[in-house]
Amino acid sequence: MTMTEHEHPNQPPYGYTDDKAAYLRRLGRIEGQIRGISRMVDDDKYCIDILTQISAVRSALQSVSVGLLEEHIGHCVVDAAKASDEAGNDKVTEASAAIARLVKS
Amino acid sequence: MTMTEHEHPNQPPYGYTDDKAAYLRRLGRIEGQIRGISRMVDDDKYCIDILTQISAVRSALQSVSVGLLEEHIGHCVVDAAKASDEAGNDKVTEASAAIARLVKS
Amino acid sequence: MTMTEHEHPNQPPYGYTDDKAAYLRRLGRIEGQIRGISRMVDDDKYCIDILTQISAVRSALQSVSVGLLEEHIGHCVVDAAKASDEAGNDKVTEASAAIARLVKS
Amino acid sequence: MTMTEHEHPNQPPYGYTDDKAAYLRRLGRIEGQIRGISRMVDDDKYCIDILTQISAVRSALQSVSVGLLEEHIGHCVVDAAKASDEAGNDKVTEASAAIARLVKS
Repeated sequence: MTMTEHEHPNQPPYGYTDDKAAYLRRLGRIEGQIRGISRMVDDDKYCIDILTQISAVRSALQSVSVGLLEEHIGHCVVDAAKASDEAGNDKVTEASAAIARLVKS
Repeated sequence: MTMTEHEHPNQPPYGYTDDKAAYLRRLGRIEGQIRGISRMVDDDKYCIDILTQISAVRSALQSVSVGLLEEHIGHCVVDAAKASDEAGNDKVTEASAAIARLVKS
Repeated sequence: MTMTEHEHPNQPPYGYTDDKAAYLRRLGRIEGQIRGISRMVDDDKYCIDILTQISAVRSALQSVSVGLLEEHIGHCVVDAAKASDEAGNDKVTEASAAIARLVKS
Repeated sequence: MTMTEHEHPNQPPYGYTDDKAAYLRRLGRIEGQIRGISRMVDDDKYCIDILTQISAVRSALQSVSVGLLEEHIGHCVVDAAKASDEAGNDKVTEASAAIARLVKS
C-alpha cells in the first residue's frame, strides 16, 4: 500500500462522497460568484459592493468547510478511533489543525 | 438523572479536565490582557496599538477553543460514537455547530 | 443624476481602478483554485487536503478585501471627508460596516 | 517632541476618547465574561457550553475593534490626510495592516 500525503486508515470513498453532487453544485455556484466579482471589478463597480460579495463568498466557503469537517469527524475520525486509540488520536490532532487553519483564514 | 442544557451520554469529568490547571492559567493570562487593554484606553494610548492587543487576545481565545474542541472530539464525540451511531451523530452535529460559531466569531 | 445602490459623492473610477488588471489576475487565480477544489471533490481526495485548499482560498479573498478596503479608505473615504464632515462620516460608517462583515465572514 | 511606538501627527486625545467611559464599561464586561469562563472550566462545565461563551467574547472583542477602527479612520486617518497626502497614505497603510490582523485573529 502506498501512502498519500496524509496517511489514513480508510481509503476512499470518504464521508463526503455521498453528497459529492451537492458539494460540486455549491462549489460551482461559488466559482460563478467569483466570476461575478471579476465582472464587478472590470465594470468599475463601487468598492463596498464588491466587498459585500467577497464576504458572501467567504461565508459560503466556510459553510462548505464546516460541512466537510462534520462528515470527516463523523466518519474518518470516528472510524479511526474505533480501530485503535492511536489512530483516533492522530485523526483528532489532524482535524484540530484543520479547524485552526480555517478559523485563521 | 436530570438533564442539563445539553444532553450528553457522559458525565463530568470531560476531556479537558486533565488540563484544567493549564486552561485556568491561560484564561487568567487572557483576563490580565483584557485589564491591560482597559488601562491602555484609560491612558489614551494610540488606537492601533490597542487594536493589536485586541487581536492578540482574540487569537489566544481561539487557541483555547481549538484545544477544547480537540479534547471534546477526542473524548466526548468518540465515546458517544462508540456507544451508538445515533449518540455519535448527535455529538458530531453539535461539535460542527460549535465550529461554525467559532469561525464566525 | 440617478443614484445607484450606494450613494457616493465620487463617480468611478474608484481607488482600485489603477490596479484593475492586478485584481482581475488575482480573482482569476482564485477562480482557478475553486475549480481545483471541485476536481479534488470529484476525484475523492482526502477531506483534510480539501479543507487546506479552502482555507487558502479564504485567505486569498481576505487579502483582496483588505487591498480594496485600503484603496477605498485612501480615496473614497478621504475625498468625502475633504468635501464635508457629513459626507466623510457617512463613508466611515459604511466602511466600518464592511469591515465588520469581513471579520464575521 | 519624543516619538512613541507609532509616529502620528496628532497627539492624544484620539477619536475614541469621547467614548472612553463606554469602552471601559464594555471591556469590564468582557473581563467579567472571561472570569465566568474560568469558573465554568473550574466547575467542569460541558465543553460545548464553554466554547459558546468563548465565541461570544470573541465577537464582543471584535465589536470593540470595529468601533475603535471606525473612530480611528474618522479622526486620525482623515486628519492626517487633510494635513498631507503622505501622512494620509501612512495612516491608511497602518489601518489596513490592523484590519488584516483583526480578520486573521
